Amino acid sequence: MKEKKQNILIIGAGLCGSLLALRLGQRGYNVTVYEKRPDLRKVDISAGRSINLAFSDRGNKGMKLVGLEEKVKKLCIPMNGRMIHDKEGNTFMSNYSGRDYEYINSISREDLNALLLTEAEKHENVKIHFNKGCKHVDFENTTAEFKDYVDNSEFKEDADVIIATDGAGSALRKSYYLGKKFLFSFSQDYLTHGYKELSILPAENGGYKTFKNALHIWPRGDFMIIALPNLDGSFTVTLFLSYDEGEYNFNNLTTPEIVTEFFQKEFPDALEIMPNLVDDFFENPTAPLGTIKCSPWHYKGNTLLMGDSAHAIVPFYGQGMNASFEDVVEFDAVLDEGLDNWEAIFKAYEKRRKKDTDAIADLAIDNFHEMKDHVGQAIFQEKRKIEMALEKEFPEDYSSKYSLVTFNEDIGYREAMLRGRAQDKAILNMLSDNVISAEDDIKDVLEKVKEETEAILEDDRIAGLY
Amino acid sequence: MKEKKQNILIIGAGLCGSLLALRLGQRGYNVTVYEKRPDLRKVDISAGRSINLAFSDRGNKGMKLVGLEEKVKKLCIPMNGRMIHDKEGNTFMSNYSGRDYEYINSISREDLNALLLTEAEKHENVKIHFNKGCKHVDFENTTAEFKDYVDNSEFKEDADVIIATDGAGSALRKSYYLGKKFLFSFSQDYLTHGYKELSILPAENGGYKTFKNALHIWPRGDFMIIALPNLDGSFTVTLFLSYDEGEYNFNNLTTPEIVTEFFQKEFPDALEIMPNLVDDFFENPTAPLGTIKCSPWHYKGNTLLMGDSAHAIVPFYGQGMNASFEDVVEFDAVLDEGLDNWEAIFKAYEKRRKKDTDAIADLAIDNFHEMKDHVGQAIFQEKRKIEMALEKEFPEDYSSKYSLVTFNEDIGYREAMLRGRAQDKAILNMLSDNVISAEDDIKDVLEKVKEETEAILEDDRIAGLY
Repeated sequence: MKEKKQNILIIGAGLCGSLLALRLGQRGYNVTVYEKRPDLRKVDISAGRSINLAFSDRGNKGMKLVGLEEKVKKLCIPMNGRMIHDKEGNTFMSNYSGRDYEYINSISREDLNALLLTEAEKHENVKIHFNKGCKHVDFENTTAEFKDYVDNSEFKEDADVIIATDGAGSALRKSYYLGKKFLFSFSQDYLTHGYKELSILPAENGGYKTFKNALHIWPRGDFMIIALPNLDGSFTVTLFLSYDEGEYNFNNLTTPEIVTEFFQKEFPDALEIMPNLVDDFFENPTAPLGTIKCSPWHYKGNTLLMGDSAHAIVPFYGQGMNASFEDVVEFDAVLDEGLDNWEAIFKAYEKRRKKDTDAIADLAIDNFHEMKDHVGQAIFQEKRKIEMALEKEFPEDYSSKYSLVTFNEDIGYREAMLRGRAQDKAILNMLSDNVISAEDDIKDVLEKVKEETEAILEDDRIAGLY
Repeated sequence: MKEKKQNILIIGAGLCGSLLALRLGQRGYNVTVYEKRPDLRKVDISAGRSINLAFSDRGNKGMKLVGLEEKVKKLCIPMNGRMIHDKEGNTFMSNYSGRDYEYINSISREDLNALLLTEAEKHENVKIHFNKGCKHVDFENTTAEFKDYVDNSEFKEDADVIIATDGAGSALRKSYYLGKKFLFSFSQDYLTHGYKELSILPAENGGYKTFKNALHIWPRGDFMIIALPNLDGSFTVTLFLSYDEGEYNFNNLTTPEIVTEFFQKEFPDALEIMPNLVDDFFENPTAPLGTIKCSPWHYKGNTLLMGDSAHAIVPFYGQGMNASFEDVVEFDAVLDEGLDNWEAIFKAYEKRRKKDTDAIADLAIDNFHEMKDHVGQAIFQEKRKIEMALEKEFPEDYSSKYSLVTFNEDIGYREAMLRGRAQDKAILNMLSDNVISAEDDIKDVLEKVKEETEAILEDDRIAGLY
């Protein structure tokens, strides 16, 4: 390993950057972090909105790594399943797992980020500077140029290593792309849908206006809204909708009347508890949904991309933050290997990690279609019913794709994807061919699903598909 | 349709741009073409190298469209199959099809481009200007800025419509990407391999030093060389090799001795007829192999990407030029639909075409692995043997993936990919499970392959995989 006195510069003090700073601080490195936004512990930068995220087992590995599991638990609201709302306002709960102890959590981005910053700053060897945005990284000389947004000055920083955790719009990634100094594979893929955040405010008594411990979904085939609970009794609601296709879309929802009409027609039960809908709708921006992949993540032993800067994904698997925290865990494991230079460390990290972040990017797109559409279809509901029964009866022997991705944090995303997709294909085809049904003996179903899944994986392997 | 007097500006007079100019000239538009390079009919821009391409049935659709089929045929050298060279210098021929009348051709890029330019210029309403490179396209105002490389002047051109056929490094695509005026999905993916062009010169009597009517391949697992014949008796040889992996790679082939050692060890029979190897190797550049995809291809009704500028692919299916010519054929078919504005025309064209260019990009990557590796493996050779027999015995009922892509020009690349991959999977798995063999009754094999292929496609459909 490199000497502990090495100076590491981290660009971006969001969730990934602050966890990385904390962990590298614990390991004894001299860590300097520059963040373009103000310190969120001192300034309210959320414009009154309470933005939350799904936090689950892979993210929790990061919290365990730095000893924060218990503190983070206090910020969590468990969500045991999806509560589906149909057009008539009927609801039904679809658990995330047949195992009672498996659930995901809603957590405030701000509260969690604040905790990580505070813990990182407890280390003398970690310094965090705010209001300083990175403009450019000279990856050949391991220097970065910043602008100070308070006094408008510009300055350059030198380091032994620069790690960019500056999100989907990463300055380092842009420098890689525009620099044309090496072959840089890169993709940005936008969905035809965008999203807009809305809210369900707390009840007058401070309680929740709808069931607290669920991720609520109103699936409508080509669009949907979802809602996640906050500690203050509110829910953050997100509308996912096409920019320009279908009867209602972001381009034609231009007046209070048409927005209200759209919700009245499609989400009447949500509208009832969203009297603030029109204000939210026209105050909050519409944002795009994009996937970013790239390679290589590093330039020699000088610079490295981590978190969203290396692999931004769409939010439909609730794994964005969890994947970034897992990055830090994986990077930490590579540091433990005792490689003797940063280039070898960065190379080993990318080799170990990229296949998995590619997989979660693709899985997140899968789930976009599943959430807005499949959850409302009979054959997918029948599949879900069978999988819940399998997980309940055989908790040691069966995990659905969702469980493999979300709760089986000891296997990588890629393995979860391959096995999970094969299982889905096996069950859907056996249902379609009347080989299994939800009424069959469940032990018999388990055996058939396992056998068919193995056969699918083996056929793909022989055909050289992976 | 738009009025015929519309002014169309085409950026780039390569193979796609010159065919497009010719066709739009035939349709009566006022066409102006700007090309950054000198006129290849007047200046030798090949630096003494004779670069050839694979020309096949999809490309020929474009030639038929403009009435040039017979003229182009005179430039073609038929290649009936792959001639495989093993490490001991043994050769065996693997035909591209079991149908004798199906073959691909080697054609000179320069000769074909020259023909298309000359034919386009026969139209009064087509003007082609050389030495004028596009620097930037203002897609909101439908203007383009050029630099004249002869007098270094810069100028701006206005048009009703701008179509960019300026290749993988497209100025219009760069303007889309950097403009950030709309959500532009984009990817550039590089293989870890690069390529370098070499040559086998004609024999002293002007003849060919190895078999003329084949695409020669020396497959070696992780790397390969290929050779295509030229009309002058020479072959253009291409080495495909990793930049930095394996015992020999582009980064360590730095001296005449090691280059010769590499060829002596891996390609002894090729080396014998390549006395000019070392000169070629150190004179010619090493170039990367990249795939480019993007969307949207058009901005409103103002500008459109076509050919490599919209979808650059790796060369392993010999379909790059053919795909670009097919673009022109597809665009021409949309023009026939009588839509009443350019935005509708561009939208309809992309909707119809993009799924197919995405597919050929993926197929070309498939074939990279097939050519350098699979062609040398027993199970793939057995598959090929069976497919040749199927095509010979049942020419109306069976086409291999290669035939579907190359010779079935009436179906799109995407359909060819889905059916071809399913067939490959069916045959490889039935071979592996001893359900079929090359010795079985061929009629029986056909029925099993067809049935299994349909089952695979149906299983994928039920699982929602496409």
